[in-house]
Amino acid sequence: MEKQDLINNRHIELIEKKLYNLLSQPTKCETLLSAMQYSTLDGGKRIRPRFTIATGILSSADLDASVTIGCAIELIHCFSLIHDDLPIMDNDDLRRGRPTNHKVYGDAVALLSGDALHALCFEILSSPDLQISDRAKIDIINLISQAIGLQGMVGGQTIDWLSTGKTLTLAQLQEMHLLKTGALLKASILGGYLAGKDANSEQFKLLDFIAEKIGLLFQIVDDIIDTTEDTITLGKTANKDLLNNKATYVNILGLERAQQIANDLHSEIKGLIQAHKNSEQLAYLADCVYYRNS
Amino acid sequence: MEKQDLINNRHIELIEKKLYNLLSQPTKCETLLSAMQYSTLDGGKRIRPRFTIATGILSSADLDASVTIGCAIELIHCFSLIHDDLPIMDNDDLRRGRPTNHKVYGDAVALLSGDALHALCFEILSSPDLQISDRAKIDIINLISQAIGLQGMVGGQTIDWLSTGKTLTLAQLQEMHLLKTGALLKASILGGYLAGKDANSEQFKLLDFIAEKIGLLFQIVDDIIDTTEDTITLGKTANKDLLNNKATYVNILGLERAQQIANDLHSEIKGLIQAHKNSEQLAYLADCVYYRNS
Repeated sequence: MEKQDLINNRHIELIEKKLYNLLSQPTKCETLLSAMQYSTLDGGKRIRPRFTIATGILSSADLDASVTIGCAIELIHCFSLIHDDLPIMDNDDLRRGRPTNHKVYGDAVALLSGDALHALCFEILSSPDLQISDRAKIDIINLISQAIGLQGMVGGQTIDWLSTGKTLTLAQLQEMHLLKTGALLKASILGGYLAGKDANSEQFKLLDFIAEKIGLLFQIVDDIIDTTEDTITLGKTANKDLLNNKATYVNILGLERAQQIANDLHSEIKGLIQAHKNSEQLAYLADCVYYRNS
Repeated sequence: MEKQDLINNRHIELIEKKLYNLLSQPTKCETLLSAMQYSTLDGGKRIRPRFTIATGILSSADLDASVTIGCAIELIHCFSLIHDDLPIMDNDDLRRGRPTNHKVYGDAVALLSGDALHALCFEILSSPDLQISDRAKIDIINLISQAIGLQGMVGGQTIDWLSTGKTLTLAQLQEMHLLKTGALLKASILGGYLAGKDANSEQFKLLDFIAEKIGLLFQIVDDIIDTTEDTITLGKTANKDLLNNKATYVNILGLERAQQIANDLHSEIKGLIQAHKNSEQLAYLADCVYYRNS
């Protein structure tokens, strides 16, 4: 096994352990906690916290702190999936190879478990247990809350919802995805970096630039595998966007052109990482996004 | 008009203006912003931000800062009402005398507007525009996020949902309401206090004690007026809990006993406020909760 694979596996172990700990607390509502655990401790790819850890290394962040920040962001990702899957949104039955949250806990508890995961993210980031400076906490909370609200993820989800069945231009599709998936992915990349004492604004800007391209690559690859792979491999409903009459990079550009763009973007991202701050872990994760192999 | 009425009206004006400003921003998704505004700029009683301002005065907080913190908490209150009213929860058509959010914007956008208000609360509290110390910001974010999640409001909503149609003891009902409505109300009382430079832990503990009693009074009075007033006066469906087969103080204790307990609690709260730190504004707000007149 390659060195980067080993490091990556170690990071995933740390993430799983931290998520488990963050979701192990005495509670007066076991059902709610159980629903929160169900959609979090389910073997997702953890690409967001893995990015957080990788960029934390670049600014000499404490490893436990960047794991914690990454996991807080992962909770937001999980909450958004629960709400997205609800019958009043995408009405999906399958997620990561298992029944969706509302199929197990009912619509009301699923809704509430999403809300509770959302709140827990900010509880973790403001906790005395997170050993970073107050300033870094505030900056990270501001980064994440902006990334997920009206001007970010939820704004993008709404645009996506409202454009169902409509024809989008490539520019409109791109703008929607910059918000819907790009903003949180970018926050995971920048959030880790902000946690370290060596963070500086020049490097931050560069990472911001790279992060936007990684977000774009992520979505194009998502659209490609949604078209080319089956439901069992995906662990979620295949061809979902086509079934839901939604615009994708593949149906706007065609499969071949989408693959070409993904390929070019991947090369560009790798070049940027290498030229400016040669982070092996970041380059490895860019490969993971491109090949979607782990 | 009495002096406290004048002060109170001035505070309400500041709150309305601040909420309007917080929800006036350029956006790529006008529909989402419009849904967020619809359920926020709708003339609620603003009892939570009024409490925040009142306790901010006790610790010499900057007035604009306590208005901002109170409004951030009000956004959480509004988000919880939107989600509560959804057909997958209480399925209510009327709120503050108008159609509920999902009746106007549809279930999906209503869900998402709640999520966006939730995120906006933390964006505001972590913003450089809020002129309080980083430490105070962190403490307030931690207070609020704890108050609204698994161990607070959302936990209470879930217990409430799961106990529909079941018989609750008085102790169980009380525990549920301490979470469902009490936790956020308490956070609004403590959040303002934490914003000021003169905040100290002894006074904080006392306010915590008073806040719990105010939360209890709030809920008992809510149950009483739900039974005794009609839908037009309430601006939301009257007898809703009875219709939804939910336990209330009135149906567990009877109307007379519930009124007696509310009366005793009100006297106790007024005594506590007077004995320890005689805040006229806080006493005035305790009266507002009791008489529910403004």
